[in-house]
Amino acid sequence: MSDEDLTVLLKQIPDWQPIVSNRVLQLQRVFAFQNFNRAMAFSNQVAELAEASGHHPAILTEWGKVTVTWWTHKINGLHRNDFILAARTDELLATKA
Amino acid sequence: MSDEDLTVLLKQIPDWQPIVSNRVLQLQRVFAFQNFNRAMAFSNQVAELAEASGHHPAILTEWGKVTVTWWTHKINGLHRNDFILAARTDELLATKA
Repeated sequence: MSDEDLTVLLKQIPDWQPIVSNRVLQLQRVFAFQNFNRAMAFSNQVAELAEASGHHPAILTEWGKVTVTWWTHKINGLHRNDFILAARTDELLATKA
Repeated sequence: MSDEDLTVLLKQIPDWQPIVSNRVLQLQRVFAFQNFNRAMAFSNQVAELAEASGHHPAILTEWGKVTVTWWTHKINGLHRNDFILAARTDELLATKA
Protein backbone atom coordinates (compact mmCIF):
# COMPACT_ATOMS: atom_id res chain seq x y z
CA MET A 1 0.00 0.00 0.00
CA SER A 2 1.41 3.39 -0.98
CA ASP A 3 1.56 6.36 1.41
CA GLU A 4 -1.00 8.02 -0.81
CA ASP A 5 -3.43 5.10 -0.49
CA LEU A 6 -2.86 5.10 3.25
CA THR A 7 -3.70 8.79 3.55
CA VAL A 8 -6.89 8.37 1.53
CA LEU A 9 -8.02 5.31 3.50
CA LEU A 10 -7.27 6.87 6.89
CA LYS A 11 -9.65 9.71 6.07
CA GLN A 12 -12.45 7.14 5.82
CA ILE A 13 -11.93 6.06 9.42
CA PRO A 14 -11.17 9.31 11.27
CA ASP A 15 -11.48 7.80 14.75
CA TRP A 16 -8.67 5.32 14.14
CA GLN A 17 -5.02 6.09 14.77
CA PRO A 18 -2.20 4.59 12.75
CA ILE A 19 0.32 3.29 15.27
CA VAL A 20 3.58 1.39 14.96
CA SER A 21 4.03 -1.53 17.35
CA ASN A 22 7.04 -3.85 17.09
CA ARG A 23 7.83 -2.12 13.79
CA VAL A 24 4.41 -3.08 12.38
CA LEU A 25 1.97 -0.43 11.16
CA GLN A 26 -1.45 -0.97 12.72
CA LEU A 27 -4.84 0.73 13.14
CA GLN A 28 -5.99 1.37 16.68
CA ARG A 29 -9.05 2.85 18.35
CA VAL A 30 -10.07 3.09 22.00
CA PHE A 31 -13.81 2.70 22.64
CA ALA A 32 -15.19 4.01 25.96
CA PHE A 33 -17.93 2.29 27.95
CA GLN A 34 -19.72 2.85 31.25
CA ASN A 35 -18.36 -0.21 32.98
CA PHE A 36 -16.54 -3.50 32.57
CA ASN A 37 -19.54 -5.55 31.46
CA ARG A 38 -20.39 -3.20 28.63
CA ALA A 39 -16.77 -3.17 27.51
CA MET A 40 -16.70 -6.98 27.51
CA ALA A 41 -19.98 -7.14 25.58
CA PHE A 42 -18.45 -4.97 22.87
CA SER A 43 -15.31 -7.13 22.83
CA ASN A 44 -17.54 -10.11 22.11
CA GLN A 45 -19.20 -8.27 19.24
CA VAL A 46 -15.77 -7.50 17.79
CA ALA A 47 -14.82 -11.16 18.27
CA GLU A 48 -17.91 -12.25 16.31
CA LEU A 49 -17.03 -9.85 13.51
CA ALA A 50 -13.51 -11.25 13.53
CA GLU A 51 -14.66 -14.86 13.29
CA ALA A 52 -17.15 -14.02 10.55
CA SER A 53 -14.42 -12.23 8.60
CA GLY A 54 -11.66 -14.74 9.15
CA HIS A 55 -9.45 -11.86 10.28
CA HIS A 56 -8.57 -11.28 13.92
CA PRO A 57 -7.59 -8.10 15.74
CA ALA A 58 -6.07 -7.62 19.16
CA ILE A 59 -8.84 -6.76 21.63
CA LEU A 60 -7.77 -5.25 24.93
CA THR A 61 -10.64 -5.19 27.43
CA GLU A 62 -10.33 -3.05 30.55
CA TRP A 63 -12.78 -1.43 32.98
CA GLY A 64 -14.75 1.03 30.83
CA LYS A 65 -12.75 0.70 27.64
CA VAL A 66 -11.83 -1.57 24.77
CA THR A 67 -8.80 -1.00 22.57
CA VAL A 68 -9.11 -2.66 19.16
CA THR A 69 -6.06 -3.03 16.93
CA TRP A 70 -6.20 -4.28 13.34
CA TRP A 71 -3.27 -5.29 11.15
CA THR A 72 -2.39 -8.11 8.78
CA HIS A 73 0.10 -10.62 10.15
CA LYS A 74 0.99 -12.06 6.75
CA ILE A 75 2.34 -8.76 5.46
CA ASN A 76 3.39 -7.33 8.84
CA GLY A 77 1.42 -4.20 8.10
CA LEU A 78 -1.83 -2.82 6.80
CA HIS A 79 -3.97 -4.25 4.02
CA ARG A 80 -7.17 -2.69 2.67
CA ASN A 81 -9.06 -5.34 4.59
CA ASP A 82 -7.89 -3.80 7.88
CA PHE A 83 -9.51 -0.50 6.95
CA ILE A 84 -12.74 -2.28 6.02
CA LEU A 85 -12.79 -4.10 9.34
CA ALA A 86 -12.00 -0.91 11.25
CA ALA A 87 -15.04 0.70 9.60
CA ARG A 88 -17.16 -2.36 10.40
CA THR A 89 -16.00 -2.20 14.03
CA ASP A 90 -17.30 1.38 14.16
CA GLU A 91 -20.63 0.15 12.79
CA LEU A 92 -20.94 -2.35 15.64
CA LEU A 93 -20.83 0.53 18.06
CA ALA A 94 -23.38 2.53 16.06
CA THR A 95 -25.76 -0.44 16.17
CA LYS A 96 -25.68 -0.65 19.95
CA ALA A 97 -25.54 3.07 20.78
CA MET B 1 3.50 -4.66 50.43
CA SER B 2 7.16 -5.29 51.34
CA ASP B 3 9.68 -6.77 48.90
CA GLU B 4 9.77 -9.80 51.16
CA ASP B 5 5.98 -10.28 50.95
CA LEU B 6 6.18 -9.85 47.20
CA THR B 7 8.84 -12.55 46.85
CA VAL B 8 6.84 -14.98 48.97
CA LEU B 9 3.60 -14.33 47.09
CA LEU B 10 5.21 -14.58 43.65
CA LYS B 11 6.36 -18.10 44.50
CA GLN B 12 2.71 -19.08 44.87
CA ILE B 13 1.95 -18.11 41.26
CA PRO B 14 5.06 -19.26 39.35
CA ASP B 15 3.50 -18.75 35.89
CA TRP B 16 2.94 -15.04 36.45
CA GLN B 17 5.52 -12.39 35.71
CA PRO B 18 5.83 -9.17 37.66
CA ILE B 19 6.02 -6.38 35.10
CA VAL B 20 6.18 -2.60 35.33
CA SER B 21 3.88 -0.71 32.97
CA ASN B 22 3.54 3.08 33.20
CA ARG B 23 5.52 2.87 36.45
CA VAL B 24 2.91 0.52 37.95
CA LEU B 25 3.90 -2.94 39.21
CA GLN B 26 1.55 -5.55 37.75
CA LEU B 27 1.16 -9.33 37.41
CA GLN B 28 0.97 -10.71 33.89
CA ARG B 29 0.52 -14.12 32.30
CA VAL B 30 0.07 -15.17 28.68
CA PHE B 31 -2.28 -18.13 28.15
CA ALA B 32 -2.00 -20.04 24.85
CA PHE B 33 -5.00 -21.47 22.96
CA GLN B 34 -5.59 -23.33 19.73
CA ASN B 35 -7.48 -20.56 17.99
CA PHE B 36 -9.25 -17.24 18.41
CA ASN B 37 -12.56 -18.65 19.64
CA ARG B 38 -10.96 -20.59 22.45
CA ALA B 39 -8.96 -17.54 23.45
CA MET B 40 -12.14 -15.44 23.53
CA ALA B 41 -13.97 -18.08 25.55
CA PHE B 42 -11.24 -17.92 28.18
CA SER B 43 -11.37 -14.11 28.17
CA ASN B 44 -15.07 -14.37 28.99
CA GLN B 45 -14.32 -16.71 31.88
CA VAL B 46 -11.79 -14.22 33.22
CA ALA B 47 -14.38 -11.45 32.78
CA GLU B 48 -16.90 -13.45 34.83
CA LEU B 49 -14.33 -13.96 37.58
CA ALA B 50 -13.61 -10.23 37.49
CA GLU B 51 -17.26 -9.26 37.80
CA ALA B 52 -17.82 -11.78 40.60
CA SER B 53 -14.78 -10.41 42.44
CA GLY B 54 -15.45 -6.73 41.83
CA HIS B 55 -11.85 -6.42 40.62
CA HIS B 56 -10.99 -6.05 36.95
CA PRO B 57 -7.85 -6.96 35.04
CA ALA B 58 -6.73 -5.99 31.57
CA ILE B 59 -7.55 -8.83 29.17
CA LEU B 60 -5.80 -8.80 25.81
CA THR B 61 -7.37 -11.29 23.40
CA GLU B 62 -5.49 -12.24 20.22
CA TRP B 63 -5.51 -15.20 17.85
CA GLY B 64 -4.43 -18.16 20.02
CA LYS B 65 -3.55 -16.24 23.14
CA VAL B 66 -4.87 -14.20 26.03
CA THR B 67 -2.70 -11.91 28.12
CA VAL B 68 -4.16 -11.22 31.57
CA THR B 69 -2.78 -8.41 33.73
CA TRP B 70 -3.80 -7.80 37.33
CA TRP B 71 -3.02 -4.76 39.46
CA THR B 72 -4.86 -2.45 41.84
CA HIS B 73 -5.70 0.97 40.44
CA LYS B 74 -6.33 2.56 43.85
CA ILE B 75 -2.79 1.95 45.04
CA ASN B 76 -1.12 2.02 41.61
CA GLY B 77 0.49 -1.30 42.34
CA LEU B 78 -0.06 -4.79 43.71
CA HIS B 79 -2.31 -5.78 46.58
CA ARG B 80 -2.66 -9.29 48.00
CA ASN B 81 -5.97 -9.50 46.19
CA ASP B 82 -4.15 -9.40 42.83
CA PHE B 83 -2.21 -12.51 43.76
CA ILE B 84 -5.41 -14.26 44.82
CA LEU B 85 -7.08 -13.38 41.53
CA ALA B 86 -4.01 -14.46 39.54
CA ALA B 87 -4.24 -17.86 41.25
CA ARG B 88 -7.98 -18.01 40.55
CA THR B 89 -7.32 -17.19 36.90
CA ASP B 90 -5.00 -20.21 36.76
CA GLU B 91 -7.79 -22.32 38.25
CA LEU B 92 -10.15 -21.30 35.44
CA LEU B 93 -7.72 -22.81 32.99
CA ALA B 94 -7.36 -25.98 35.03
CA THR B 95 -11.15 -26.41 35.06
CA LYS B 96 -11.39 -26.29 31.28
CA ALA B 97 -8.22 -28.22 30.41
